[in-house]
Amino acid sequence: VTKEWLRVAVIGAGAMGTIHARHLASSVPGARLAAIADVDASRAAALAEECEASRIETDAGAIFADPSIEAVVVASPPNTHGALIERAAAAGKHVFCEKPVDSDPDMTDRALAAASRAGIKLQIGFNRRFDPTFRAVHSAIEAGRLGRPLLLHLFSRDPRPTAVSSTRAIAGLFLDMTIHDFDMARFLMQSEVTQVYALAGTMMENCGEPDTAIVTLRFTSGAIATIDNAHTAYGYDQRVEVFGTDGCIATENEQPDRARLVHADGRIDALPLYFFGERYLASYLAELRAFVHCIQNDGEPAVTGQDGRAAAKVAAAAQRSYETGQPVRMSEIG
Amino acid sequence: VTKEWLRVAVIGAGAMGTIHARHLASSVPGARLAAIADVDASRAAALAEECEASRIETDAGAIFADPSIEAVVVASPPNTHGALIERAAAAGKHVFCEKPVDSDPDMTDRALAAASRAGIKLQIGFNRRFDPTFRAVHSAIEAGRLGRPLLLHLFSRDPRPTAVSSTRAIAGLFLDMTIHDFDMARFLMQSEVTQVYALAGTMMENCGEPDTAIVTLRFTSGAIATIDNAHTAYGYDQRVEVFGTDGCIATENEQPDRARLVHADGRIDALPLYFFGERYLASYLAELRAFVHCIQNDGEPAVTGQDGRAAAKVAAAAQRSYETGQPVRMSEIG
Amino acid sequence: VTKEWLRVAVIGAGAMGTIHARHLASSVPGARLAAIADVDASRAAALAEECEASRIETDAGAIFADPSIEAVVVASPPNTHGALIERAAAAGKHVFCEKPVDSDPDMTDRALAAASRAGIKLQIGFNRRFDPTFRAVHSAIEAGRLGRPLLLHLFSRDPRPTAVSSTRAIAGLFLDMTIHDFDMARFLMQSEVTQVYALAGTMMENCGEPDTAIVTLRFTSGAIATIDNAHTAYGYDQRVEVFGTDGCIATENEQPDRARLVHADGRIDALPLYFFGERYLASYLAELRAFVHCIQNDGEPAVTGQDGRAAAKVAAAAQRSYETGQPVRMSEIG
Amino acid sequence: VTKEWLRVAVIGAGAMGTIHARHLASSVPGARLAAIADVDASRAAALAEECEASRIETDAGAIFADPSIEAVVVASPPNTHGALIERAAAAGKHVFCEKPVDSDPDMTDRALAAASRAGIKLQIGFNRRFDPTFRAVHSAIEAGRLGRPLLLHLFSRDPRPTAVSSTRAIAGLFLDMTIHDFDMARFLMQSEVTQVYALAGTMMENCGEPDTAIVTLRFTSGAIATIDNAHTAYGYDQRVEVFGTDGCIATENEQPDRARLVHADGRIDALPLYFFGERYLASYLAELRAFVHCIQNDGEPAVTGQDGRAAAKVAAAAQRSYETGQPVRMSEIG
Repeated sequence: VTKEWLRVAVIGAGAMGTIHARHLASSVPGARLAAIADVDASRAAALAEECEASRIETDAGAIFADPSIEAVVVASPPNTHGALIERAAAAGKHVFCEKPVDSDPDMTDRALAAASRAGIKLQIGFNRRFDPTFRAVHSAIEAGRLGRPLLLHLFSRDPRPTAVSSTRAIAGLFLDMTIHDFDMARFLMQSEVTQVYALAGTMMENCGEPDTAIVTLRFTSGAIATIDNAHTAYGYDQRVEVFGTDGCIATENEQPDRARLVHADGRIDALPLYFFGERYLASYLAELRAFVHCIQNDGEPAVTGQDGRAAAKVAAAAQRSYETGQPVRMSEIG
Repeated sequence: VTKEWLRVAVIGAGAMGTIHARHLASSVPGARLAAIADVDASRAAALAEECEASRIETDAGAIFADPSIEAVVVASPPNTHGALIERAAAAGKHVFCEKPVDSDPDMTDRALAAASRAGIKLQIGFNRRFDPTFRAVHSAIEAGRLGRPLLLHLFSRDPRPTAVSSTRAIAGLFLDMTIHDFDMARFLMQSEVTQVYALAGTMMENCGEPDTAIVTLRFTSGAIATIDNAHTAYGYDQRVEVFGTDGCIATENEQPDRARLVHADGRIDALPLYFFGERYLASYLAELRAFVHCIQNDGEPAVTGQDGRAAAKVAAAAQRSYETGQPVRMSEIG
Repeated sequence: VTKEWLRVAVIGAGAMGTIHARHLASSVPGARLAAIADVDASRAAALAEECEASRIETDAGAIFADPSIEAVVVASPPNTHGALIERAAAAGKHVFCEKPVDSDPDMTDRALAAASRAGIKLQIGFNRRFDPTFRAVHSAIEAGRLGRPLLLHLFSRDPRPTAVSSTRAIAGLFLDMTIHDFDMARFLMQSEVTQVYALAGTMMENCGEPDTAIVTLRFTSGAIATIDNAHTAYGYDQRVEVFGTDGCIATENEQPDRARLVHADGRIDALPLYFFGERYLASYLAELRAFVHCIQNDGEPAVTGQDGRAAAKVAAAAQRSYETGQPVRMSEIG
Repeated sequence: VTKEWLRVAVIGAGAMGTIHARHLASSVPGARLAAIADVDASRAAALAEECEASRIETDAGAIFADPSIEAVVVASPPNTHGALIERAAAAGKHVFCEKPVDSDPDMTDRALAAASRAGIKLQIGFNRRFDPTFRAVHSAIEAGRLGRPLLLHLFSRDPRPTAVSSTRAIAGLFLDMTIHDFDMARFLMQSEVTQVYALAGTMMENCGEPDTAIVTLRFTSGAIATIDNAHTAYGYDQRVEVFGTDGCIATENEQPDRARLVHADGRIDALPLYFFGERYLASYLAELRAFVHCIQNDGEPAVTGQDGRAAAKVAAAAQRSYETGQPVRMSEIG
């Protein structure tokens, strides 16, 4: 008997595409990295060489046309996602798509509809659901250890960049960064957001957009959440606290080591793992494995297109609240 | 040479009056506990016996009439504070008053005006400013270790009571409990609140009032704060996190011991100190010492009547926001 | 009815005498500070003034001759303890004695015999048994949470002094400093030491004596302990770890606050409480209260003269092991 | 240009061979898994299938005879290591050998001599040197952050097994388990052991051998170390503390997640990663990468045969000390 490999192509050879290609190259059981596509041929070639991928493309069309390729990872700019999902759906390819589904709400709806009609699997890259620490929080809630969840606090801070990233420039703070927290809030509270209130400001220089924000959410269940987004001088700061009728669960950042120095000036231990490539590496691998597993077992994706759309709608409400200075009901958002 | 003792009377022999009387009995250098007054004579007598106080009164009038008594601690119900301050001021006694200044805003204004006219010292019982951990946070901010403070999170949760306390019944959640956090927010951020948004709900049974809340504050400086108030199944939970341009400072609860057990079911350490009487005992002593010190050295009280009024106004804004569902500007509050 | 106060005199107005006198002055229910004796009259006078004690003596004889004084705290140099206990016993006064019982083994035996004959209460100042954290460890062991205790590690490090203390000069490392750990080892393991092995060295300059040591103990139960004594650049370091068949319990140092700063250079929190006066203050008060309580209730002292003698014998064995380089059986010690 | 892969065979398909084979299969740049040998053909075949290795052998001879294979990983029982190193050396293959070099001291000497004569690279599997947390401790010492290291404590406890492992049965506690700590002690203190004192006992049932031990080491530098070996009810417990003239560094165990639950019964967080396969996985990969790197760059192995011999000699001294009850000088060991 011969094994049947799922052949997967990666579209977009940027930061996220690189992470996914590396994982497909060696660490996802049952899958093979079939090709890498990027509009920049040299970028595609460099990644292909590193990952021992035999094929590169500068246009995704050749990928969609290849019947031996069954699935694609979409890691191109956020304003290209929806169209790529539509084309993949038309070609019958399963899609793992980085968040957001698309930076445009209408395109998001079209993409979801196309995926649904075609019956392909569509999984969205809310990787934090696969992080061991967030997973432990989710499990504790599921197991009823907190009783009824009442309050949630998400701390989600990036290292301060030297320049605004291209995805941020396209999607803005709420749809590019906070969207992970909107998804995590839905995932942990298992309730839908009914109302959003966003306060934000600009801390980094040369950035017209807000980069620091507190977003408050109200849920159908009556629970309340706050999200703290900022850009730090000390690295990635990714924590959560959930308070319920029976207890509270809170997390610490992962650290590169667990050594603690005590000397005359104080007690010092390691800073958090520096950024998403360090902190969330295991979760990126786990989400791809889950994607491949759901294709091979014809299961439901762990993170659906509807999850992607729901989080994006909360982001839109946050944007409107920031602009109007008023709380926004989710029913007001298209 | 003989020492001159500051003779201090305690008005109100409830939980807070008891704490203050004990401290005055033995631990406040330069001060002596002169008398205890309570409308309930047996309660006054029991406390007087414990503290070896030689005099009890059921009416504060006798206290105010006694020229040998120079200062009073007001620890009676919150709707009696203002009138007592007025009477103390009229009698030229210095006043240490438990929060709030009064449960009525107009009475608060009258009391402050009376104290000012009389030239007495008036210190409000925002004891948390004297807690070593909150003090360490304040010092770090003062020393510039965080750069410019941008975000503040206060976690201020009481143990779940079996019944609603009498002060809560009079003052409500925001003026009875959150008022400490409003003061702490002003103290740490050193900026005035400009806008308040409050979400709240009821978790405890048999309580018409909200008992769980998230209050969001905006400051003149542009900084943003959230306050988390709840009633827990695991004791007193009193923490803060301040994020600034250069770093972040966060606190842990104080614990009765620092032993940690590891066995087959997990790694377990001690719950927080159970309630205010345990956690904040040192701060109650420190605030009284500061009060006596400011009288003896004719200094400015560490927590002024204006601090008391400012926090109460934020509480009023929070109440209005809770009732209207809208953010409230401080300029809208009388 | 009038209360009957136990009148207690303090002999020795040094560091430990000062701590005990302050506690007797205001914080030990049922007791009163009756007098302070010190060969240095000005030292006695200064402490008496601070504690509002009405009487000072330069010779303990006057204390022993006063029938109104029922108990004494012996906090003089360690080579004077035994004789003072003998004199106190002869006068029928109860004795709280700082460790060691005496720096001379024969004098120790004589003192214990005298106390026993006279039927006085004799409590030795092994205060760490009253520290909340060590007490929590003891309770966990008592409650069987570790199963059978197998291994014990004591970390007992002082801040590095600028000069060798007078008690150290008289008693040496093992009888002055490690004696606390020998007592704690017996207290926690509830088994007697059968064999001692000591390795030591000199780290501090200008000190002929060893100041850094690892002492290994074997117990009747088969359990094994290590004791780590050193002098640090970062303050008092007082921790314990006990490992048993079912689990392990380990402690952290107490800290002056629980704030933690994260900035670009690392995550920093507070150093341990600086020295015994800060870390063990509550335990010094608790041991005196226990002493007074045992007198008033005719109970057994919480720490007996035999406890004092047993720890001193282990210290003697450690000294011999250090000198010979060989393990020493307790049966070899007088 | 074609890449030149270093072809590596794994000898022994047990627990450690499996870990190494998996790493060679996909995660060691520049290396390829060429073959798997085990006396048990079905065990070899199962591992080969998992790792997509194309060749299995039941006799290592075929491996040594294959000129395309340049290096071997020796992960067979400890009493076969030395002979396999000799054969590999004779065939000019580089060797990565699990600890100990051999369970027999003479065979150890012969193997080292053979490797030296043949000029092959020989690296010993003291993987803990590559663990991020131990590495951070080593770096802090190297950087002088502790000043002069004076005291070292190693805690090295395995989960309690249901049966004694085959390697333990062959090598005994000190040569099978403590040997990692002897190497770590030499690595961190950068000084040679001069004297060893071992106390041990039996905690696990049905085990003639000691399974719980405290070993005390003295170093040329004057420093002192203790090693704590035991078998726990709560998983793998791997920590270190180093105390020096300027400070102290101590480590915590790695945990599967960083979530902490607080409820009415206490504050609970995750147990340590369960055993070596979880805790030290990254270090096993790093040591293999270092091995391949040193071959490709003709460098010195990070852990030499002499390191292996030195740790084994300390183990022999510990065994003698345990048997005689006396401290043993390293000069007494062959």
